[in-house]
Amino acid sequence: MKIAIASDHAAFDLKSELAQNLRDWGHEVLDLGPDSADRVDYPDYGYKLAEAIACGDAEYGVALCGSGIGISMAVNRHPAARCALVSEPYSAALAREHNDANVIAMGARLTGPDMARTCLQTFLVAEFQGGRHADRVAKLTEPNISTQEDA
Amino acid sequence: MKIAIASDHAAFDLKSELAQNLRDWGHEVLDLGPDSADRVDYPDYGYKLAEAIACGDAEYGVALCGSGIGISMAVNRHPAARCALVSEPYSAALAREHNDANVIAMGARLTGPDMARTCLQTFLVAEFQGGRHADRVAKLTEPNISTQEDA
Repeated sequence: MKIAIASDHAAFDLKSELAQNLRDWGHEVLDLGPDSADRVDYPDYGYKLAEAIACGDAEYGVALCGSGIGISMAVNRHPAARCALVSEPYSAALAREHNDANVIAMGARLTGPDMARTCLQTFLVAEFQGGRHADRVAKLTEPNISTQEDA
Repeated sequence: MKIAIASDHAAFDLKSELAQNLRDWGHEVLDLGPDSADRVDYPDYGYKLAEAIACGDAEYGVALCGSGIGISMAVNRHPAARCALVSEPYSAALAREHNDANVIAMGARLTGPDMARTCLQTFLVAEFQGGRHADRVAKLTEPNISTQEDA
């Protein structure tokens, strides 16, 4: 599969490590940066990742920052992205099975590399269950929210 | 403070419990439903919660579903909402301190009521640290993403 990966500076090392794991598992990796551990803003990389999913450049995405919180907010701004912040494999599986998540987010300062790798592996093999879950996922893809101007 | 709370059926009991905790702590609670444990779709309640934040009906929000994943995706569709999915208090604090999160999401099937209560308490007392974090939060409020039609 073609899988995009993006992070902020705090998760730069974990990004490199998981990107290599993905390659070892036979996937094609689209590394959206950053290219160093210099300070960057997580929303910029979250949006890049969401766009890669939206335009079909990647089937799945991996979004990483210090806690995983900020970048998961950014990715989920995009109606084509369904980003699940996880720290253990059970949630990683549920994210695919119930929410058809196409992006997994993790926090490099909170979740160690072995646990992150296990979550990612679980995420990629789990399958969406469809059925009643599909109706809910459809509502995420066409969100019924007011525009920013209304707020 | 005025705090909105919403869930799906899987988190109906936890919603009732946390709403009562919030009242006991002196907050005004806006319970956005559901009113029973009958099956509902989490996006509907996530969007209601985001709207309540966006229009100023509530300062903070609590979003609950089975795993917390689905409703956190829905809430984060709205640029006025910054929703952090957490399962332990350290993340709950970071969500406020670094991301100025205004909604906390938790999964009733994964996080027990005592842990959820502790996360909520931590979330409400933690304070946004501003500074460099403020620039990043601004990018979440005015997301640079293409529209659904572009995708």
